[in-house]
Amino acid sequence: MNSISMKLNADNLILQALAEDITSEDISTNAVMPEPKLGEVSLICKQDGVIAGLDIFKRVFELLDDKTEFIFYCKDSDNVKAGQLMATIRGDIRVLLSGERTALNYLQRMSGIATYTRSIADLLKNSKTKLLDTRKTTPNNRIFEKYAVKAGGGYNHRYNLSDGVLLKDNHIGAAGGVKEAVAMAKQYAPFVRKIEVEVENLEQVREAVEAGADIIMLDNMTAEMMTEAVKIINGRALTECSGNVTRDNIEKLINIGVDYISSGALTHSAPILDISLKNLHPVE
Amino acid sequence: MNSISMKLNADNLILQALAEDITSEDISTNAVMPEPKLGEVSLICKQDGVIAGLDIFKRVFELLDDKTEFIFYCKDSDNVKAGQLMATIRGDIRVLLSGERTALNYLQRMSGIATYTRSIADLLKNSKTKLLDTRKTTPNNRIFEKYAVKAGGGYNHRYNLSDGVLLKDNHIGAAGGVKEAVAMAKQYAPFVRKIEVEVENLEQVREAVEAGADIIMLDNMTAEMMTEAVKIINGRALTECSGNVTRDNIEKLINIGVDYISSGALTHSAPILDISLKNLHPVE
Amino acid sequence: MNSISMKLNADNLILQALAEDITSEDISTNAVMPEPKLGEVSLICKQDGVIAGLDIFKRVFELLDDKTEFIFYCKDSDNVKAGQLMATIRGDIRVLLSGERTALNYLQRMSGIATYTRSIADLLKNSKTKLLDTRKTTPNNRIFEKYAVKAGGGYNHRYNLSDGVLLKDNHIGAAGGVKEAVAMAKQYAPFVRKIEVEVENLEQVREAVEAGADIIMLDNMTAEMMTEAVKIINGRALTECSGNVTRDNIEKLINIGVDYISSGALTHSAPILDISLKNLHPVE
Amino acid sequence: MNSISMKLNADNLILQALAEDITSEDISTNAVMPEPKLGEVSLICKQDGVIAGLDIFKRVFELLDDKTEFIFYCKDSDNVKAGQLMATIRGDIRVLLSGERTALNYLQRMSGIATYTRSIADLLKNSKTKLLDTRKTTPNNRIFEKYAVKAGGGYNHRYNLSDGVLLKDNHIGAAGGVKEAVAMAKQYAPFVRKIEVEVENLEQVREAVEAGADIIMLDNMTAEMMTEAVKIINGRALTECSGNVTRDNIEKLINIGVDYISSGALTHSAPILDISLKNLHPVE
Amino acid sequence: MNSISMKLNADNLILQALAEDITSEDISTNAVMPEPKLGEVSLICKQDGVIAGLDIFKRVFELLDDKTEFIFYCKDSDNVKAGQLMATIRGDIRVLLSGERTALNYLQRMSGIATYTRSIADLLKNSKTKLLDTRKTTPNNRIFEKYAVKAGGGYNHRYNLSDGVLLKDNHIGAAGGVKEAVAMAKQYAPFVRKIEVEVENLEQVREAVEAGADIIMLDNMTAEMMTEAVKIINGRALTECSGNVTRDNIEKLINIGVDYISSGALTHSAPILDISLKNLHPVE
Amino acid sequence: MNSISMKLNADNLILQALAEDITSEDISTNAVMPEPKLGEVSLICKQDGVIAGLDIFKRVFELLDDKTEFIFYCKDSDNVKAGQLMATIRGDIRVLLSGERTALNYLQRMSGIATYTRSIADLLKNSKTKLLDTRKTTPNNRIFEKYAVKAGGGYNHRYNLSDGVLLKDNHIGAAGGVKEAVAMAKQYAPFVRKIEVEVENLEQVREAVEAGADIIMLDNMTAEMMTEAVKIINGRALTECSGNVTRDNIEKLINIGVDYISSGALTHSAPILDISLKNLHPVE
Repeated sequence: MNSISMKLNADNLILQALAEDITSEDISTNAVMPEPKLGEVSLICKQDGVIAGLDIFKRVFELLDDKTEFIFYCKDSDNVKAGQLMATIRGDIRVLLSGERTALNYLQRMSGIATYTRSIADLLKNSKTKLLDTRKTTPNNRIFEKYAVKAGGGYNHRYNLSDGVLLKDNHIGAAGGVKEAVAMAKQYAPFVRKIEVEVENLEQVREAVEAGADIIMLDNMTAEMMTEAVKIINGRALTECSGNVTRDNIEKLINIGVDYISSGALTHSAPILDISLKNLHPVE
Repeated sequence: MNSISMKLNADNLILQALAEDITSEDISTNAVMPEPKLGEVSLICKQDGVIAGLDIFKRVFELLDDKTEFIFYCKDSDNVKAGQLMATIRGDIRVLLSGERTALNYLQRMSGIATYTRSIADLLKNSKTKLLDTRKTTPNNRIFEKYAVKAGGGYNHRYNLSDGVLLKDNHIGAAGGVKEAVAMAKQYAPFVRKIEVEVENLEQVREAVEAGADIIMLDNMTAEMMTEAVKIINGRALTECSGNVTRDNIEKLINIGVDYISSGALTHSAPILDISLKNLHPVE
Repeated sequence: MNSISMKLNADNLILQALAEDITSEDISTNAVMPEPKLGEVSLICKQDGVIAGLDIFKRVFELLDDKTEFIFYCKDSDNVKAGQLMATIRGDIRVLLSGERTALNYLQRMSGIATYTRSIADLLKNSKTKLLDTRKTTPNNRIFEKYAVKAGGGYNHRYNLSDGVLLKDNHIGAAGGVKEAVAMAKQYAPFVRKIEVEVENLEQVREAVEAGADIIMLDNMTAEMMTEAVKIINGRALTECSGNVTRDNIEKLINIGVDYISSGALTHSAPILDISLKNLHPVE
Repeated sequence: MNSISMKLNADNLILQALAEDITSEDISTNAVMPEPKLGEVSLICKQDGVIAGLDIFKRVFELLDDKTEFIFYCKDSDNVKAGQLMATIRGDIRVLLSGERTALNYLQRMSGIATYTRSIADLLKNSKTKLLDTRKTTPNNRIFEKYAVKAGGGYNHRYNLSDGVLLKDNHIGAAGGVKEAVAMAKQYAPFVRKIEVEVENLEQVREAVEAGADIIMLDNMTAEMMTEAVKIINGRALTECSGNVTRDNIEKLINIGVDYISSGALTHSAPILDISLKNLHPVE
Repeated sequence: MNSISMKLNADNLILQALAEDITSEDISTNAVMPEPKLGEVSLICKQDGVIAGLDIFKRVFELLDDKTEFIFYCKDSDNVKAGQLMATIRGDIRVLLSGERTALNYLQRMSGIATYTRSIADLLKNSKTKLLDTRKTTPNNRIFEKYAVKAGGGYNHRYNLSDGVLLKDNHIGAAGGVKEAVAMAKQYAPFVRKIEVEVENLEQVREAVEAGADIIMLDNMTAEMMTEAVKIINGRALTECSGNVTRDNIEKLINIGVDYISSGALTHSAPILDISLKNLHPVE
Repeated sequence: MNSISMKLNADNLILQALAEDITSEDISTNAVMPEPKLGEVSLICKQDGVIAGLDIFKRVFELLDDKTEFIFYCKDSDNVKAGQLMATIRGDIRVLLSGERTALNYLQRMSGIATYTRSIADLLKNSKTKLLDTRKTTPNNRIFEKYAVKAGGGYNHRYNLSDGVLLKDNHIGAAGGVKEAVAMAKQYAPFVRKIEVEVENLEQVREAVEAGADIIMLDNMTAEMMTEAVKIINGRALTECSGNVTRDNIEKLINIGVDYISSGALTHSAPILDISLKNLHPVE
C-alpha cells in the first residue's frame, strides 16, 4: 500500500485496532518479560493462496516499535504455498508478541480475499469481462479489502457513495424514470463522475442508453436477457452484471460479453488464508 | 446490545463506518431527492440462519436521523427463514437509502457469525463442553463479532490482551518454565484474573496443574492425548481445547470431556447471512 | 446542506470551530449572565449578494442548544439586498452571543463565495459553458466552499485526489506520454472514474483524444489555441479551460465553446459578504 | 511557527486537511508511479507580496514523508517579488505531487493575509497606532491566520472568547450598565485578563473610564467623535478603533491617536498571494 | 457549569472517562439485568464540606441515558453536612450502576477541592487578599478543578500557557533582565494580556514596577520582604504571593496586603469529600 | 511503563494534557526566546517519598521534541530523599519550559500515590495480606494511577467494569440472591473472569462460598465479623476487605487473615510528592 495512504488513511485504523486489543497492557507478556529482549520470528503460510497485506502486517509492528526489522521473501499478489516462509521479523520479543494477533488478523483476512478473488478472476481470464468488488465490505476495513481485491486480480467499483453515482430503482422511481434520473444526476454530480444506472428489463436498458448513461448495471437478469441487453447497448455504455455472483455460479456469465461482473462475495464471504508466526526465539 | 455499550463503545465505530461510506454526500440520492420524503422498507431474510445485530442495524439509521421508526418481528438469537419479514423501517427515504449498505454490512456479518456459531454449538448440545470464540476477529469489529458469537450460542473467551492472561510457549520460555510463568503472572496480573496456560504435552499438563493454573489450554493435541490430559487434570483446572477447530472436524472432540472448545473460524471464516431491504416505497 | 452530510461530514468541523473559539468558556458572557435568558436577534444583510450557508449558520447554534428556534425569510441561492432581514433567531441569549462569531464566519464566507461565483456564472449564462470550482479551497472548509459554489450557480469539479483522475504534466512525464498515462489510469482507477488529461498544445490535444481521455483540460492556452483545440476534439471528449480565470479576464473565454471553465478564485479570493446579527433583545 | 505549537496545535489540522484531500489515495499519481522516485521542485512566487507560512508549507510534506528536504531562500515576513525562487524541495515525487495542493492552499492564504496586512500596517507606520486583527477568521484556521497577521506586521487581538474579555452592548445591557458590566467581569474573569468595553458615545466613554476598564473600544464612531473620546480617556485606558476598517478607508483614522485599529478584513477578505510549484523533475 | 462549556469542553472528557471505565460493557450489571428497570437512588454526603460538580455528576448519567431524572436539594458552593440528602436520581438501574463510579469520581474530587479552598478562603475573609489557584491541576481535569476552586470561593489565575503571560527567572534570564522581558512580552503578546513578572528580591521589585509590569509575583519571599515589596509597589501593579502556600502556613501572609495569594495545594493535594449513592431501589 | 502501553494507551492522554495547557502557544516563552537554545535542568526531589512516573515525565518532553535527552539517577519504586538529584534533562530550553508543568503534574501525582501506597503496604509487610487499589481514580488518569499503586508496592484490583466481575448488593437484589447472581455471572461473563461477590453478613458469606464465588468481598464489617468470615470461608475463596480503609485505620485489619485489603484513598486522597525542576541554564 502506498506510504501516503498508509499515513493518512490506514495508520489510524491500525492504531485503533491495536488499542482494541490492548486497552491497558498485554498482561501476559508484561508479567514474564519486564525488559525488552531481541528476538526473531518466521511468517509461514499454512495454506496455498494469494498473499495480500504485507505492508499492513509490517505497519502493525512498526507502529508499536519503529526499530522492528523485516525481510520479506514474497510480495503482495504472489501465489504462496502451504509451508512457505514468507518473511522473518526481528525486534523486541514483547512487540512481536503483543502485535502478533492484530497483524495476522489483517494479513489473513486480506489474503483470504485476494485468494478468493483470484480464483474467480482466473475463470474470466480468457473473456473480455473483468471482475469487480462492491461496497459489501466489513465496516472500517474498506481500504484494506478493496486493496486486497486488486491484489487478487479484481478491479474496484466506486469507493463509496460520495465518489460514484449509481441510480437504483428507488432513485429512478423518485426521479420519475430512467431518463429523468440520469439527467438529474448529470446536473447534480461533479462532472468527473460517470453515471451508472441499474436496470431490470430490456425496456429500461433502452431508456438508459438513450438517457446517456455511462454505465448500465444489469441487475439479477437471466443470462439470456443479459445477452440481449449487451446487444442492444452495443458499446454505447459500459455494462456491469450484478447479483449474488460467486465462484460457484459465475460460469454461465463468462461469455455474455459484459464489461464487468461484480461480486459482493469477494469481500463478504471469503474465508481467511491460514498464516502464522512460528519459531519465535531470542537472538543476541 | 446494551444501550450503554452502544453509546460508549459502538456509536463511534458505527459513525466511522458511515463516514467511510459517505465522505462528502450520497450523490445519487441527493441528485434525485432534494427534499425529505417519508418512506417504508422491509427487512427480509434471504437464507435460513440465526439473526444477530438488529440493534446495530437500527442504530445505523438512528445515527443518521433519530426520527426513523422500526417494527421488529424477530429478535437477536432467533432462527430465521429465507423469505421471512424481519422488520419494517419507516423514515426519510434519503436516510433509508444512504444508511442501507452500512446497516446491512453489519447485520449480514453478525448474522453470518451467529449462524455459523449455532451450527457448531448445536453439535455440542448434549456434551458438557461449551464453544468459545477467540481474538481472531476483524479489526475494529470485535465488539460486534463477540456479541454475535453469544447470540449464536457460543461463549466469549477473553476480550483482549488486557483483560485475560494466556501464557503461551514463548511466555513459558521467557519465564523459564510453566511453574515460573504461572507464578509471575499471579504476582503481576490484577488478582481478578484467572491464569490460563497453553500446554503441548502431558508433562506440561502436570506442571500446569501443580503450578496452580486456573485454566489449561490443550493446544493441537490428538484426541487421545486430550482424553488423557483431562484425566490427569481431574477437575483441578478448567480445560480448553484449541487448534483449527471448524464445523467439519469438531465431531471427534465432542466426547473428550474438556470444558471448552475454542474456534477462530467462528469469527474469521463465517460467510455472511444474506439479508436485504426490499420494497422501499413512499408513504404519505 | 443535506442533513446526512451535516451529521457525518459537517458537524465535527463545526464543533471543532466552536471549540477553537471557546477553549474553556465565553468569559464575557458568563461574567454578566449567570443564568439562561430568552432573547431574539435579527440576521441582517449589509451588502447585496447571494446567500449561502443558512443551514450551517443554524447548525452552529443548534449544536450549542438544540432548543434554539429559527425563522428564515430567504433560502440558500437567493439574491439578497443590503438591509434585508434574512432571519430571526430565538433562544438563550448566552447561546446567541457565544455562537455569533462562528456562525457568521461560516455564513459570510460561504455567501461571499456564492456572490462571487454568481457574478461570473452570470457572464456565462448565454453560452454553453459552465463554471467550475477547483481544489484551491481553504483547508478543512472544502465541504462548505464547494457547496457555496453550487449555491452561486457554479458546478463542482472533483472533490479531492481520491475521487477524480486528473493527469498533469508530471503524471504524463512519469508515464512516458499522454497515451501511456491514460492507459495506466484506466487500468488503475475505479472504473466509475472519468479520466481527465491536462494538455498544453495541440499535439497533446490530439494525443489525448486518441488515448480515449474523457475530459481534456486546456491549460494556460490562448483563446485562439483553445478555439482550435475545441475544433479538433469535436465532441469526442469534454473540454475544460483552466488558468487564473477571474471575473476580470473571463470575457474573452466565453465564446470559445469549451464545456467548462474552472476558476480557483471562486474559493481562494472571494471577499466575504457582510452580514450581521442585530438588535439582540430579551423576550419574555 | 514555533515547533511546539506546530506539534500540539497545527499538526492535527494539517493532517485533517490532507485527509480532506486524500480520502483513500491519490489515484492519478498512484496510477502512473507505483514506486517512489526522487525528484525536485521549485517554489516560485508569481506576485509581489509578503510571504508567510513557510513552516506550514514544509510541514505538509514532512507529515507525508519526513525524509523530504527543503532549502529556503527567504523567510516568513520577507517581501517577495513575482518570479522569485523561494525554495527548492526534494523528495519522493509522489509526495511532492500528493501534498502540493494542500501545502499551497496554506501558503497562498497565509501570504495573502500577510500581504494585505502589511499594506495597511505601512500606512500606520508613522503614527502611534497599531493594527489589530479580529476573530473574523476562517473556521479551523485561526492559528494560521493570526500568525500571518503578525508576519505582515499586525498585532493580535484576543485569540478567542476564553482568553479575552470584551463587553459589548448586549453584555452591558444584561449587566445593567457599563459600570456594572466592568465590575462583574473583574469579579468573574481570571485576574490576568484586561477588561475591554465597547462604547458607542462619549457618555459611555466616560463611564468606561470611571469603571476602570483597561481597554475602550470605540465602535463605529466618526473620526471627530473618536478624537474627542481619546481626549477624554487621556491615557487612563488603552483605546481601540473598530468598524469595517479596510485599506480604502483607514486614512482618516491614522492621526486620531487611538492605540489600536482593528480590521476584520485582514483575515476575512484578503485575496491569496499567487504562488506555485514549478519545474518538478526527477533527480537521480 | 455553563451548558456551552459543558457541550464544547466537558462532554468529550466525560465520555472519555466513561469509556475508560467501560471498554466493552459493564459485565456485572449486564449479567444480572438483561432488561432496563426503573429505579431511584439517593446522593448522600458523608462528610461536612462544600459541594461542587453537581452538573458534571448529572451529565455523566445523561450522557448514558438522557431520560435520567434528577432532583437536587442543594447547589454548587453550598455547605453540606454529613448525612445530608443532596439529590435523588431516577432512571434505568443499569445506567445508575454503570455511571455511579465515574459520576462520584468527579463529584468527590471537585467537592474536595471546593472544601479545601473554602477552608483557606475563609481565613482571608477579612483581608483585602484573594485566594488564587495555579496550573498544578490534574492532567485533563483542569476545567473541572478550576471550576471547583471558584465554587469554593477562590479565584482563577491564568487558564494555561496560552492565555496568560508569566515571566519567570528563566524568561528574564533569556531576555537579559526584567525590563527587557516585560518589553518583549508587551510587544509579542496579544494586547489584551496583562504582563506578570516573578521577582525574588526588592531590586527586581523596583525593576518590575518601572518596566510597567501589570502584576508582580513575589516568589518565595519572607513575610517581611513581601511587606516591604508591597510598600515599594504602592498600587502601581497588582501583587501575588506564591510559594507552597497551604492551610497550615497561610496565617502569616494574611495581613501583608498583597492582592492575591496563590496555592497549588488547592488542586494538587486536596483530599476528596466523601459522597455516595445509597439506597438504590426499583420503582414501578 | 511498558513502551507499548505508552504508545497505545498513554501518548494520547499526554498529548491531550499538553494541549490543555497550550491551546495556541506558550506566550511567555515565545516572547523572549524566538529561537531554540540548548539548556539543561535538574529534577530535584523536595520531600522524602517513593518516585513513580519517570517514563511519563520523560515522555511529555519527548512528545514535544524527540531530541530531548535524559539522565536518570533513580528509577520508579525507589525511595527518594528531599534534596536528591533524580535526573538531568537536556534539550531546547523552550521545550523544557513549555513542558515543565505538565511533566511535573504527572510525576508529582504519581509519586504522591506511590508514596502513600508504600506507607500502607509497609504496615502489611509481615502479614499475608496484600494491599489493593480501587476504581476511585481520577477520570482519564487511571492508567497512570494504577501504575503508581504498583510502583508503591500495592496490587491492582480490576481495571474497569469490563474486565472484572463484582456483584454488589444491587446486583444480588436484581438477581434474587447471592446464589442466583453468581450463577448468572458465570453464565454471562467471559470464562476467564473470576467472580467476586460483596457480602455484608455471615449468612451471605456462607451463601457466597456455596455459590462458588471466586472472591468474597467483606464490606464494611467489623474486625470481629471479618475474622469469623475468614474462618467460615476457610480458603475456599479469596477474601477482600473493603470500606474506607486509610493509613490511620488499617492497623486493626492487619491480622485478620484476609487475602486483600482494598483502599480507595490510595488514589483519591494521596497528596502529591513535591518535586521540581531547578537550575535551568543554557549549555553550548
